[in-house]
Amino acid sequence: MEKILEKDSVKCAVIVGAGIAGLKTASELYASGVKNCMLLEARPRVGGRLFTVKSEVFPERAYDLGGSWHHHTLENGLFLEELSLPKSERADFVFDIGSVIYMEHDGTLMNCEKVGLDALLNQLMQYIESELFGQEAEDVTFFEIFLRYIYEKHTSLSDRQIEILAMAAQNLEFWHGVDWKMLSGRWSEMDQNRRDAMVLNYDKIVGRIQRSFPEDWIKLNTEVRQIKRVGDEVHVTTNDGAVYRTEFCVVTIPRTVLALSLQEEKRMGRIEFIPPLNESISSKINKMHFGFLGKLILEFDKCTWENRCSNIFKAGIQKVHIDKEVRAARDFESFAKKIDSMTQDFKHYSDYPVAIVNMMAIAGIPSLIIFTKPPSTEYIENSCKAEIAKTFKPLIDIVIKAIGSPFDCIIDLESKITNNSDLKNPILKNVITTSWAKDPYSLGGYSACHAGDDPKGLVESINKGQDSRIRFAGEHTVFKSLGCSYGAWESGIREAQYILKQQRQ
Amino acid sequence: MEKILEKDSVKCAVIVGAGIAGLKTASELYASGVKNCMLLEARPRVGGRLFTVKSEVFPERAYDLGGSWHHHTLENGLFLEELSLPKSERADFVFDIGSVIYMEHDGTLMNCEKVGLDALLNQLMQYIESELFGQEAEDVTFFEIFLRYIYEKHTSLSDRQIEILAMAAQNLEFWHGVDWKMLSGRWSEMDQNRRDAMVLNYDKIVGRIQRSFPEDWIKLNTEVRQIKRVGDEVHVTTNDGAVYRTEFCVVTIPRTVLALSLQEEKRMGRIEFIPPLNESISSKINKMHFGFLGKLILEFDKCTWENRCSNIFKAGIQKVHIDKEVRAARDFESFAKKIDSMTQDFKHYSDYPVAIVNMMAIAGIPSLIIFTKPPSTEYIENSCKAEIAKTFKPLIDIVIKAIGSPFDCIIDLESKITNNSDLKNPILKNVITTSWAKDPYSLGGYSACHAGDDPKGLVESINKGQDSRIRFAGEHTVFKSLGCSYGAWESGIREAQYILKQQRQ
Repeated sequence: MEKILEKDSVKCAVIVGAGIAGLKTASELYASGVKNCMLLEARPRVGGRLFTVKSEVFPERAYDLGGSWHHHTLENGLFLEELSLPKSERADFVFDIGSVIYMEHDGTLMNCEKVGLDALLNQLMQYIESELFGQEAEDVTFFEIFLRYIYEKHTSLSDRQIEILAMAAQNLEFWHGVDWKMLSGRWSEMDQNRRDAMVLNYDKIVGRIQRSFPEDWIKLNTEVRQIKRVGDEVHVTTNDGAVYRTEFCVVTIPRTVLALSLQEEKRMGRIEFIPPLNESISSKINKMHFGFLGKLILEFDKCTWENRCSNIFKAGIQKVHIDKEVRAARDFESFAKKIDSMTQDFKHYSDYPVAIVNMMAIAGIPSLIIFTKPPSTEYIENSCKAEIAKTFKPLIDIVIKAIGSPFDCIIDLESKITNNSDLKNPILKNVITTSWAKDPYSLGGYSACHAGDDPKGLVESINKGQDSRIRFAGEHTVFKSLGCSYGAWESGIREAQYILKQQRQ
Repeated sequence: MEKILEKDSVKCAVIVGAGIAGLKTASELYASGVKNCMLLEARPRVGGRLFTVKSEVFPERAYDLGGSWHHHTLENGLFLEELSLPKSERADFVFDIGSVIYMEHDGTLMNCEKVGLDALLNQLMQYIESELFGQEAEDVTFFEIFLRYIYEKHTSLSDRQIEILAMAAQNLEFWHGVDWKMLSGRWSEMDQNRRDAMVLNYDKIVGRIQRSFPEDWIKLNTEVRQIKRVGDEVHVTTNDGAVYRTEFCVVTIPRTVLALSLQEEKRMGRIEFIPPLNESISSKINKMHFGFLGKLILEFDKCTWENRCSNIFKAGIQKVHIDKEVRAARDFESFAKKIDSMTQDFKHYSDYPVAIVNMMAIAGIPSLIIFTKPPSTEYIENSCKAEIAKTFKPLIDIVIKAIGSPFDCIIDLESKITNNSDLKNPILKNVITTSWAKDPYSLGGYSACHAGDDPKGLVESINKGQDSRIRFAGEHTVFKSLGCSYGAWESGIREAQYILKQQRQ
């Protein structure tokens, strides 16, 4: 088979994927004096699942379609690095301030006063730890462990505590992008006091890391098709027929795309490993899942709602009185079964629970970001703007009214209403949606665990690498920071240090 | 849980999906005097995977993005029905005339004279039958059985016979939309003399069937979420919260979407069955696969190539001398392994083998339709028109040159070149692509078998229905006409007759 072998010398490292993990690997290697790396990226841009877009309608507004927070800022190395920079060089950020506003589907605000939600969440976390982390403990869904907690403790909880706790529990779906009936109880990470900060915007961080090594290390629009171990080298074949010879290869593609390697079928983004992925990785790679969080960004011409509350949770359309049900229940099984059947939302895509970020409170721009989970995520990815706007209009009106807008919104995606119209209503001028689930280079959002998953096992296997020269980095290769952009960034440092250590030996 | 129960009487039948199977079921029931049916369709249109679109650039040109042939016209009931109609009422059709033109990747035309391809294909089919249909025979991939045939018979085959046979074998990928290395040998259906006819266009047939029963039976934009057996009734719940009570329910959604019912995860199009799909169906539903055929329609301003040849097969970029390899082989295993490694195309998406239909020969319009298989199908579904045009331009130029064009094509997707320009080159004005694989209501093309599949078993199970009242129709529920539009149509008649018979009893 004819192959164009690159004429120049064997590279030190070929990095597959120019997301933050790949960029950071390259950056670290360059900082340590490595002179010849290649970063191969299938997309026409760097950043991977960090992706800032500018609005086409309001050019001064920008949004992160992918990761958009500094998570766990107390232990987030990337955040600490950012803090050490002059203000002009780092990305702005806004801490998640105040508490989430919980509202029922009809817009009724929940009164959270004197509920002691933080203490309750703390107790729930401890309960999960004691129930699901013992020697013999088996993982169950977050939905089940939550109901077990409510069932066991209900005599010491008020009706309102149960009600609000149920909303806070469902809000967790929008951290993981996974339905609470599938989400792992063990790995649900209920801690809501993580001091997260929204980044404005991630492109500044991505750009900074990208500029810290030579521009010509990066090759865009270049899909890797094959990674082959040949003696002491790795040969990396790309779609343009080039074969890169390298001492080390760091594969940073998402876990979902990596899992395609186990199947025979040719798919976009699939890499053929020769020899195939080792037994330790193959057996674990599907012991983790992916979240399918979607974002629906609604851009208005002006703000008619209040600018203080930043985070809102709106419950699903079916009002479920968990408090009444638990007190009337004969046994746990019948209680759980009843709540399960009462929380099957089977109507409009806008009837599911949603989390909403009010960008007026965060960045002073009159846009709302609605977070969705499946199947609404698929719906927004596959429908046209006009249809989405129509579907979500009733929900938007309820939400903006609940947070102080005296006026319903008007849809005007085709800009038929002039800017100097006298209308007092907020006018929806544009809709932006994410498409991570259908994007063949991501096939979903980020790592998240279903009940029974084994994230620790996968991370341990994958950190040992395919062998001593074919390595992995990315948000799915770290444990404490699993699924976070700073986790991906940390993994880049880890693999760069691994390579540097091997070279010294 | 609050549900709006339809106030009117129990329906005779609720049909899920208004593709040709669902439309025909409704049509048959109405013709037999049934007065109250509902046809619930998730998409904003009828037709399902029969979908005719008009070009936005050349409004007089229309294409079928989905099914576009009358297959097996000697035994195709839909075709025979069409023939019985006055010409003005039926859709035009053009028989696949003449033979396929086989060309190498560089455009070199293969000389098929005196090769006796038909006889060879016949022999290959007989070989497959004797090898894979015996009592104890195990299915293998079409790739493997083809190589076994070549290996066993090569002493009686000329070099050119082997070469052209290899191309004809690979052309089969575009009937099934499946890579020949995965395609079932047993169910490969090599018969190339099926007297197929291209339909111009299917919208006429779909419209005719649709108009044969009351318009208000059809409800578009209506997703079915739940199908529940309740005593002697079936309750069908839709996304708008309505519950339809019915005596019979005929589910015509694609097999891929039906298979979502086995998973817990909520997905667009997923139907929850209560009770769940029976053991017989569940155990068989994944014993069949789907083809992922894509179509890339290239619209030119004029034709500069010849208008006689309608079907072209262009080989992959790697020239493999199977004839030389087989004669030099030590044993079958090493021969098969070598050919396998030589036919891994890992470069541009345009380097894979493709089948091409010359619409000038068929309908007198200067458009070419390129058929793709994975991963090129995913590529055309997920890339922008300009990128696709750029990627495929070298291939287009090779093909049109090979069939007589003295000029390369010029890409002008943004209509910058005026209509009265003096350019003699064919100008590519528009690109149309299919999106069946990412469409959440189809999740692929149509039924096709991988090695080891059991289409007979699935069809037998599914034809028994979920129970006596919840039934299935569609192209995946028929055996001889599996994957064909007339098969779906036949299944509609079958289920209508089943219902009528039950009613009489």
